[in-house]
Amino acid sequence: MAYFENVNKIKFEGAKSTNPFAFKFYNPEEVINGKTMEEYLRYGVAYWHTFTADLSDPFGAGTAIRNWDKFSEMDQAKARVEGAFEFFEKLGVPYFCFHDVDIAPEGNSLAESNKNQDIIVSMIKDYMKDSKVKLLWNTANNFTNPRFVHGAASSNNADVFAYSAAKVKKQLEIGKELGGENYVFWGGREGYESLLNTDLKLEQDNLARFFHMAKDYAKEIGFGAQFLIEPKPKEPTTHQYDFDVATGIGFLRTYGLEDTFKFNIEANHATLAGHTFEHELRTARINGMLGSVDANQGDPLLGWDTDEFPTDLWSTTLAMYEIIKNGGLGTGGLNFDAKVRRGSFEQDDLFLSHIAGMDAFAVGYKVANKLIEDKALDSFIEERYSSYTSGIGKDIVDGNTNFKKLEDHALGLNEITNKSGRVESIKATINQYLLTAFADNK
Amino acid sequence: MAYFENVNKIKFEGAKSTNPFAFKFYNPEEVINGKTMEEYLRYGVAYWHTFTADLSDPFGAGTAIRNWDKFSEMDQAKARVEGAFEFFEKLGVPYFCFHDVDIAPEGNSLAESNKNQDIIVSMIKDYMKDSKVKLLWNTANNFTNPRFVHGAASSNNADVFAYSAAKVKKQLEIGKELGGENYVFWGGREGYESLLNTDLKLEQDNLARFFHMAKDYAKEIGFGAQFLIEPKPKEPTTHQYDFDVATGIGFLRTYGLEDTFKFNIEANHATLAGHTFEHELRTARINGMLGSVDANQGDPLLGWDTDEFPTDLWSTTLAMYEIIKNGGLGTGGLNFDAKVRRGSFEQDDLFLSHIAGMDAFAVGYKVANKLIEDKALDSFIEERYSSYTSGIGKDIVDGNTNFKKLEDHALGLNEITNKSGRVESIKATINQYLLTAFADNK
Amino acid sequence: MAYFENVNKIKFEGAKSTNPFAFKFYNPEEVINGKTMEEYLRYGVAYWHTFTADLSDPFGAGTAIRNWDKFSEMDQAKARVEGAFEFFEKLGVPYFCFHDVDIAPEGNSLAESNKNQDIIVSMIKDYMKDSKVKLLWNTANNFTNPRFVHGAASSNNADVFAYSAAKVKKQLEIGKELGGENYVFWGGREGYESLLNTDLKLEQDNLARFFHMAKDYAKEIGFGAQFLIEPKPKEPTTHQYDFDVATGIGFLRTYGLEDTFKFNIEANHATLAGHTFEHELRTARINGMLGSVDANQGDPLLGWDTDEFPTDLWSTTLAMYEIIKNGGLGTGGLNFDAKVRRGSFEQDDLFLSHIAGMDAFAVGYKVANKLIEDKALDSFIEERYSSYTSGIGKDIVDGNTNFKKLEDHALGLNEITNKSGRVESIKATINQYLLTAFADNK
Amino acid sequence: MAYFENVNKIKFEGAKSTNPFAFKFYNPEEVINGKTMEEYLRYGVAYWHTFTADLSDPFGAGTAIRNWDKFSEMDQAKARVEGAFEFFEKLGVPYFCFHDVDIAPEGNSLAESNKNQDIIVSMIKDYMKDSKVKLLWNTANNFTNPRFVHGAASSNNADVFAYSAAKVKKQLEIGKELGGENYVFWGGREGYESLLNTDLKLEQDNLARFFHMAKDYAKEIGFGAQFLIEPKPKEPTTHQYDFDVATGIGFLRTYGLEDTFKFNIEANHATLAGHTFEHELRTARINGMLGSVDANQGDPLLGWDTDEFPTDLWSTTLAMYEIIKNGGLGTGGLNFDAKVRRGSFEQDDLFLSHIAGMDAFAVGYKVANKLIEDKALDSFIEERYSSYTSGIGKDIVDGNTNFKKLEDHALGLNEITNKSGRVESIKATINQYLLTAFADNK
Ligand SMILES: [Co+2]
Ligand SMILES: [Co+2]
Ligand SMILES: [Co+2]
Ligand SMILES: [Co+2]
Ligand SMILES: [Co+2]
Ligand SMILES: [Co+2]
Ligand SMILES: [Co+2]
Ligand SMILES: [Co+2]
Repeated sequence: MAYFENVNKIKFEGAKSTNPFAFKFYNPEEVINGKTMEEYLRYGVAYWHTFTADLSDPFGAGTAIRNWDKFSEMDQAKARVEGAFEFFEKLGVPYFCFHDVDIAPEGNSLAESNKNQDIIVSMIKDYMKDSKVKLLWNTANNFTNPRFVHGAASSNNADVFAYSAAKVKKQLEIGKELGGENYVFWGGREGYESLLNTDLKLEQDNLARFFHMAKDYAKEIGFGAQFLIEPKPKEPTTHQYDFDVATGIGFLRTYGLEDTFKFNIEANHATLAGHTFEHELRTARINGMLGSVDANQGDPLLGWDTDEFPTDLWSTTLAMYEIIKNGGLGTGGLNFDAKVRRGSFEQDDLFLSHIAGMDAFAVGYKVANKLIEDKALDSFIEERYSSYTSGIGKDIVDGNTNFKKLEDHALGLNEITNKSGRVESIKATINQYLLTAFADNK
Repeated sequence: MAYFENVNKIKFEGAKSTNPFAFKFYNPEEVINGKTMEEYLRYGVAYWHTFTADLSDPFGAGTAIRNWDKFSEMDQAKARVEGAFEFFEKLGVPYFCFHDVDIAPEGNSLAESNKNQDIIVSMIKDYMKDSKVKLLWNTANNFTNPRFVHGAASSNNADVFAYSAAKVKKQLEIGKELGGENYVFWGGREGYESLLNTDLKLEQDNLARFFHMAKDYAKEIGFGAQFLIEPKPKEPTTHQYDFDVATGIGFLRTYGLEDTFKFNIEANHATLAGHTFEHELRTARINGMLGSVDANQGDPLLGWDTDEFPTDLWSTTLAMYEIIKNGGLGTGGLNFDAKVRRGSFEQDDLFLSHIAGMDAFAVGYKVANKLIEDKALDSFIEERYSSYTSGIGKDIVDGNTNFKKLEDHALGLNEITNKSGRVESIKATINQYLLTAFADNK
Repeated sequence: MAYFENVNKIKFEGAKSTNPFAFKFYNPEEVINGKTMEEYLRYGVAYWHTFTADLSDPFGAGTAIRNWDKFSEMDQAKARVEGAFEFFEKLGVPYFCFHDVDIAPEGNSLAESNKNQDIIVSMIKDYMKDSKVKLLWNTANNFTNPRFVHGAASSNNADVFAYSAAKVKKQLEIGKELGGENYVFWGGREGYESLLNTDLKLEQDNLARFFHMAKDYAKEIGFGAQFLIEPKPKEPTTHQYDFDVATGIGFLRTYGLEDTFKFNIEANHATLAGHTFEHELRTARINGMLGSVDANQGDPLLGWDTDEFPTDLWSTTLAMYEIIKNGGLGTGGLNFDAKVRRGSFEQDDLFLSHIAGMDAFAVGYKVANKLIEDKALDSFIEERYSSYTSGIGKDIVDGNTNFKKLEDHALGLNEITNKSGRVESIKATINQYLLTAFADNK
Repeated sequence: MAYFENVNKIKFEGAKSTNPFAFKFYNPEEVINGKTMEEYLRYGVAYWHTFTADLSDPFGAGTAIRNWDKFSEMDQAKARVEGAFEFFEKLGVPYFCFHDVDIAPEGNSLAESNKNQDIIVSMIKDYMKDSKVKLLWNTANNFTNPRFVHGAASSNNADVFAYSAAKVKKQLEIGKELGGENYVFWGGREGYESLLNTDLKLEQDNLARFFHMAKDYAKEIGFGAQFLIEPKPKEPTTHQYDFDVATGIGFLRTYGLEDTFKFNIEANHATLAGHTFEHELRTARINGMLGSVDANQGDPLLGWDTDEFPTDLWSTTLAMYEIIKNGGLGTGGLNFDAKVRRGSFEQDDLFLSHIAGMDAFAVGYKVANKLIEDKALDSFIEERYSSYTSGIGKDIVDGNTNFKKLEDHALGLNEITNKSGRVESIKATINQYLLTAFADNK
């Protein structure tokens, strides 16, 4: 059966189209730098927000109207798979992502839960045969069930640690089964609410032990997916262990895990941590750890993760700038970890919001690509740092100097001349690129 | 002498221009709805940020390189006037705004300060004769001098109250002298740092008394400028009395001042108060109190007023949307209460940043105007609220119902059907308008 | 049956008690200023957090272990009433508060919901006969059900407006039936998510119409409870209409409702709005609008309403300072709108957390009372503002001056002398009061 | 001459003293765990806030009244030294800290600046001979002067890098000369304002090169002080490189500097970064990197570093808890990096505010010490994590398990039982300790 009867395959119609169910800027077949947009952008749909979530919030019940909600339990899970693949195909998106509990309900025991997983995974595998959609990443939800109330790998309860390990083990196996290209660890309840009852060192040590065992098991079963940590601050525990990329780097290096993991960077998590999205991307990039992206946006006036569909073109441009500079995302992709607003509860909104996000990143991609081609930022930056390419600057970079020599140099300086950083002018230039990027697409 | 020798009159060159010293989107002569952009947008230059500020911050000395800094005291003040009018003309901006201390230094006594004001005001008046630039508004700086440490009109010290009154009196006279179209009150030190040593009621009562006396004096001297309150939270006192527009409305109504004042709304003050810029504009608008705008933008990651030049096209579009819906700003204008970054310390940056801001609001104006012309938002909103145009909805609006009748109606309802609010789709539409607005300006 | 079998009546045991199930500072029988603590503090238990909530959060299922959860629907509702009155008595708290949906489940129709209400209200009334606990306030939950997705009184859907009215009508009747001393309106979904699809003026006008009809109906049925607005910003809608007390004052005055309403002020809502708790209390107090208090606290590092039990003694002291200065809360009280943390999921935690909160406000009460008795703050404040009791200051306060006279005064001043505000020293004094308040309670 | 004529040596007078110029809780001679408070708490006075700052803010001129301000330049610098040592002695504080520019004005050249340093350092050294006050740490101010507009060690300008090195070199020499026990690096302008013009990798690499050269030079001259990084986010650059402790750990480990540096942790910087003060202390502690403390507090409602004197007893208690658990601060101390409010501009306020801070940390020390002695938190925590001391938990900690074994264990579990975290109850216990700590000090 069809779950989205009144929606047809979404097509690219160009910037002037007035059809809400069409792409205006994302043209999957458009070739940029030798690759189609579809190949390069590697969009993914988040199973949880799109097929499982009911749009409840802390002050209200779910509002979502979904055709699979006439079913329940495993029947509903199966209906969701059908709906999902219909959605993937109509939207034309090449990847999807899921947590274990998104695709199948938990059973009354771990064994039953695993069995439920097996049934749905088998069904998904069948559907994937007839589809070109692939698994970007899967993960274990070790935060929703009450058993994780005090954490999973960082729980004070060793039974919970063991249970968490079993769930990740299962998902590593499923990732291998479905050809997942990455495997994500989002901290969930890994953090603490109050130091007053917390053994911080034991919890962090245990978290590292967990990661090492995960790495060993993946190796053991020959699952070669890229491991990704997804930093997030403040939610759901007040003090999350993976606060941001920089914190993650410190943790990974402290525990000898820096070669095993890259980062899955979410825009809204970046801003909650006090950074821009592009800051987190850049920080990961210069450390060789930019793995994948959760493409969404937050509300700067709100203090929690709103997971909105990305429509801020400035942000998508600067994000794509980092991604292009990174040489693309490798096995990673642009997963829409975004949910329709509670007031956008109709099924059509699922398409409309994904279209909004896919168009926004396509715009960002084109604008960023042009900025790079024209060296619109690079020319200025190269000139700006040119003092490090010769003389005392080169000595600094080459390690050929010391404080005494530098003092000698400084004592010999008459005057130090700096130049304007020109931030306002550069911003105006980016606006100009943005406003003229589609001047030909009439 | 020329203070900006290497800059010529800024011209409109269109969206593809690569000349940094040219407008790409602001075309002063372009006619929209029967008015030129220049007439409608009523841009103003802020004297303080542009001619007086040295770009110091709490952690560093001033960096600004300004040609008038070879002079000092009154000579510097006069040089600034010369530079200012050269700047106004080259930029082609129709308005300017100032605080008393921006244009002339304080003397050793109030009398001497007033004399300094007179000398510079006379000079400004002369320059205005040969220029088409006009005074959007002036104001008294009742916050910088140490005497205002505990407030001005809300000081615990009656002498300070009197001194503040004298300064505002002088500026009302100068406003009249120079034909100022508005007069602004920004709270400055009107607020409190700690309740522990504060008589909140006396301070607010005194502030209201001050406003009434200002109103009386303006009437007495026949100064018909629109009075404006500029809300701002958190800075410089922790608890500013004019927190936001809604707070201002409450204050004005409590003290019978609601017919005397409108609001001067600053973008960055809006976001510091936890609102969007457009929220503040809309709140003032529907209360008939939208007077003027301080056109800048903040940094959502920082907790203070950064007063950046506006380059966020989304924000300028939604701001201009409110302004057009308001029927324009009347005597108000778009004052660039914005400062170049401390790293943008060259004189050229003053032009480049104003160009960035003027272009950004011109873009916002064009896009908003098109959105309104096409009823891109209005059509949806009219339909969305249509239940209030007939039946029980009309009864509600017309005041023809009560809780009993409403209960009867509710008891008779089988099911209540809501429709999606479509926020994501509307955002995508605005992006589409933005990206295609200058498609013809190749 | 007993729902809290292992807990006995909580007794006051003094500051050195090591019994977790005892008050250390709250002594209900202690007389201060001629009233017992029990009389003066008027503590209330929030039905929703204590008896209905399951401690779920946006990332996890409920963790609460509650003895009434073996039942469901109306049986569960009845069991909760039994548990609640057992809890009230064992805790020794004189008041409680509820929303309609806290006490009884919604039915399949409004009529059935009302019938459910009637059954439980009748049961509560019976229990109240044998108990000294009274109803501080009740309210209608017009935000949880999906029908309120776009607001209640400010919905775009007139049917929803009518339904909301019917629910408030019912609660006004129930308030009268149970002798409720106040009636609360918390905005819930009254606000907007995005201006892009919102008619702000119509929504606010309708909200005012709703309040007027509520007032009329209460009068009609002879329900004399004090009406209270509970301001809250940012949640659940991004832009709540009752942002803070100052916003509420503006709204009420704009619509002629200022004599009908006072405010129910919640600590955590204050800080979310960018204010201190005491700021909101003071603002309401000096406007004669301090009605009641939702006694909790927030986490300053988190951007949402955490509704924690109050344990910050500094905050409870400054809050009680305002309440004493207000001459008490009149019909209002100290309602613990606070929930145990998700990790505090045992029934014992309900007692332990209420004890923590009741002790904290008792401490605040004693310390604040001593500060006032000793004029520890007042002496300094009186001296600080003494310039307004004679001379030009008195003229200002008495309305006997104007800008000309004030300028004359200012021109005659040689030097203006301000005095230190002494904030640090005052804080140290408050700490001293706090640390010595229970020095005799060994 | 005396600069603080009307203040005598501050004495301990106990909790009931009404003398503002006396300690109520800090008793330097009181012995706790075999050490006097004076020995253990190692208080330090910050030269900049106390002797150099004028209390200006971004909206106002300095208000401070200081007796040394009748002098200027080097005479003023000398007068400050005299005043400082008078202050140290009267306050009875064992340490002080300074930046180069605090103690002597910059000259017209680096050479002249160094000469000014030498003159004042010589004078300080003389004063130290007759005083028991010691140098906790010194540092170079590489942020105030316009030359550092684009950074110091992370400047785009190699000349600025060299100049910065020369300044640090000089301070390392001075630290050695004066027997400094630590040397602090606060990032200042080390960060970036906008990625748009920034080479992030080069800047961070250069910062690391700078640190390595500093380390080499200290070794070369035999200066054995502990190097400290002081993390701070957001100010003065939007994106500071030393955001928080976790970021610092990542940076130090990435560049092989983890054995050279510990952290100087400031309370207000912690909260600006989204953490509690105790979180930062704990993070450093469990990594063996807790070096020293900048003892102040922030305003949770404001988004910048307010550097207030510490009076929050809850915070000082939890801070001292971490410090005691760390075995004290080693060579570090409690430096009051705190400034009197702009309204507390009299010289007396310098004493009053330090008394407030010293009393607050003394209270925190006593309360924390009692909490630890009684195992008030530890008993609960040990029990809480006891599952890791045997069985599967011990296997996890000992590295004797893997995902397969853990899955086996999990499959064999019937039910997982967690226990309440009891946060509210623990908070109440801490309040009880606080309120009874001075019950005997009548
Ligand atoms: Co995510
Ligand atoms: Co998210
Ligand atoms: Co402004
Ligand atoms: Co501003
Ligand atoms: Co509440
Ligand atoms: Co609340
Ligand atoms: Co510091
Ligand atoms: Co600081």
